[in-house]
Amino acid sequence: MLDWLVPMDGPEIIARAQSLARHSDSPQHYTRTYLTPAHQAAARQIEGWMREAGMAVRTDAVGNVIGRYEGAAPGARALMIGSHFDSVRNGGKYDGNLGILLGIGCVDALSARNQRLPFAIEVAAFADEEGARFQTSFLSSRALVHGFDAKLAERRDAQGVTLGDAMRAVGLDPARAGEARLKPEQLAGYMEVHIEQGPVLLKEGHALGVVTVIAAGARHAMKVIGEAGHAGTVPMAMRHDALAAAAEMVLAIERRACAPGLVGTVGLLEVKDGTGNVIPGEVRFTVDIRSGDGDLLAAAQREVFADLDEIAARRGVKLEGNRTHDVRAVPCPGAMQDQVAAAIERVTGARPARRLPSGAGHDAMVMADITEVGMMFVRCGAGGVSHNPAETVSAEDAVLALAALEDFARHFAPPARPR
Amino acid sequence: MLDWLVPMDGPEIIARAQSLARHSDSPQHYTRTYLTPAHQAAARQIEGWMREAGMAVRTDAVGNVIGRYEGAAPGARALMIGSHFDSVRNGGKYDGNLGILLGIGCVDALSARNQRLPFAIEVAAFADEEGARFQTSFLSSRALVHGFDAKLAERRDAQGVTLGDAMRAVGLDPARAGEARLKPEQLAGYMEVHIEQGPVLLKEGHALGVVTVIAAGARHAMKVIGEAGHAGTVPMAMRHDALAAAAEMVLAIERRACAPGLVGTVGLLEVKDGTGNVIPGEVRFTVDIRSGDGDLLAAAQREVFADLDEIAARRGVKLEGNRTHDVRAVPCPGAMQDQVAAAIERVTGARPARRLPSGAGHDAMVMADITEVGMMFVRCGAGGVSHNPAETVSAEDAVLALAALEDFARHFAPPARPR
Repeated sequence: MLDWLVPMDGPEIIARAQSLARHSDSPQHYTRTYLTPAHQAAARQIEGWMREAGMAVRTDAVGNVIGRYEGAAPGARALMIGSHFDSVRNGGKYDGNLGILLGIGCVDALSARNQRLPFAIEVAAFADEEGARFQTSFLSSRALVHGFDAKLAERRDAQGVTLGDAMRAVGLDPARAGEARLKPEQLAGYMEVHIEQGPVLLKEGHALGVVTVIAAGARHAMKVIGEAGHAGTVPMAMRHDALAAAAEMVLAIERRACAPGLVGTVGLLEVKDGTGNVIPGEVRFTVDIRSGDGDLLAAAQREVFADLDEIAARRGVKLEGNRTHDVRAVPCPGAMQDQVAAAIERVTGARPARRLPSGAGHDAMVMADITEVGMMFVRCGAGGVSHNPAETVSAEDAVLALAALEDFARHFAPPARPR
Repeated sequence: MLDWLVPMDGPEIIARAQSLARHSDSPQHYTRTYLTPAHQAAARQIEGWMREAGMAVRTDAVGNVIGRYEGAAPGARALMIGSHFDSVRNGGKYDGNLGILLGIGCVDALSARNQRLPFAIEVAAFADEEGARFQTSFLSSRALVHGFDAKLAERRDAQGVTLGDAMRAVGLDPARAGEARLKPEQLAGYMEVHIEQGPVLLKEGHALGVVTVIAAGARHAMKVIGEAGHAGTVPMAMRHDALAAAAEMVLAIERRACAPGLVGTVGLLEVKDGTGNVIPGEVRFTVDIRSGDGDLLAAAQREVFADLDEIAARRGVKLEGNRTHDVRAVPCPGAMQDQVAAAIERVTGARPARRLPSGAGHDAMVMADITEVGMMFVRCGAGGVSHNPAETVSAEDAVLALAALEDFARHFAPPARPR
């Protein structure tokens, strides 16, 4: 019955994900950030698996590992199947990695049958999507699409190492990083398989889902400036406590984000020179608000910032903020959604395939600037948690995802690009 | 008229405080922590001024600098005049330092007249009161009173340096630190002059005040354990955000502490592995609550922790806490208060002298375990802020404080100790 049988089984995919996660910046938990020794070791392991699957492998000018499996005619346009192999701090081992491993597994299946398609397949292992080390989201897919932003080479990590020096340390030349850029005509399309990182498929009993849109998001870096003072001697009524003000702001953001269609998070909050016996004088925090609906997001931001201004004024603290990250909603074209849905339906028998938005950002949203993108979600276990060591995918779901990806690739027809 | 004329004038005291503050761990702001190079340079400058004032100087086994001015008969019991020369991070330059400089100034005045009192005067410059580097409050006065706690030698600073190694690096031997302990019969009493660090004297127009009691205080280290997750994908209703829970706790603490006779502060809050796009999974914060009334403090703590437990239960997060610091209220004996008040009244002409509690902890509260303690507060400028670079004392108030201290010393009669 399983005419989409693939050589790699579920336990093998899970075993590869676990093996890859051993390359971590920290011995305590899984953290892998751009250009560290663990990151480079992971790149070499991915490269090895790509070669075993019959791909020609190149490492591009920003450290992406790209394996190419030629189509029926050499030099054809490529369906790129990609995801990232960097992580957030103390993250989950399927986030990003799963999509790379399934891309390799898909080529492995074609290669085992010596099957050539009318287009090449390129599996792209993106080196820096989370951007945890240098605060650079989507660095590597941006380098493919828009070229490398030379200003990034000056960014420093927490130890003061510049991104440029980190590149040089692994044999990359920041002056030549612009060469990572692709020509749009090299691509027939872009497909990304990713763990859902949320609870929707799990709650509804679907193994796989079709992504309709990647949510709009805005991120802000805020600073509250109050007045430091002695914790024992300044009467409560005379205080301008930056942390108490920030705490009220955190709750205001949470309250606004509870409206339907929104999520909002303060992920980072730091008290400058924080000590138990000193009233906080300065606090920095981040604000992350997302929605599948750009108008709803814009309205929510207006409301949140009005709340924050009111809190600052009432408490006599100064509030500064700047937007660090602003992403418009990126829809997946209907023709790509339909092809992903058809593959899921053929493989799982469930129809219609569940379609759902992505609250998380993905490299696909950057790739959408130069080609048609499709995305498939795989059910996230453990209650739907991600960016967390408890993140998990079942072996059964992994092999269904591999089969659906391979089915998608075999049936893939590049949609006409409306330009 | 000024029969209490002293050789050092106000501008000289202020100039010495400013000169001493140049010895800072940070070039950007005034921070001086136990056993750093800046701390040792400050110790040497204090030692120099002590010698100029006619004192014999010893550095004791934990790094306290103690200058002795003999009384009429050599080897007499000493009135110890002390305060500390370490600081909080980004602190104020009068906190602690002022009391040392005035102690030296007092001996300078006696010495200039070659006046010997029926008791010796020892000026104690305490090396570690704030405890900012190793989280060790009152380390140095505790070493005089109770001996050095050998376990402290294992404590590490933020760079991982142990306190024991830091001692060895400046020529102190942690194995011999116990030798700092004093015998109670060496002391005739203990007097500390300190900037008020609050706004009471400033608001009421008094240059100087008599401390009645040093407030009771409790400090707790709390940990909130929620569930980390992806900021874009976990619906708000499914979150267990450790930071949002902690924010609600910060506001609950603030609300309870607004009751009369209390202050409460969350001075430190840290998000573990905090990143903008991750729901916080773990947050640590401190709680500092103080009151001149021990019963009020105990009741407030019960209420605060009931609030915190309710918040944790409602939000589905785990709350852990332990008490790191617990100080009973320490009254200054009436006979000492009266002698301080009499000196202030003679010098300022204002009577009765303002008596007020101290919300901040001071070395005097430790010294009270072995001798009778008195404390005088000096008006704090700039709205009463302290533990803050804006902390200030006027030259006029500084010289009044010096005159009152010298007057106090000349009239000092050791009270009978009720034991």
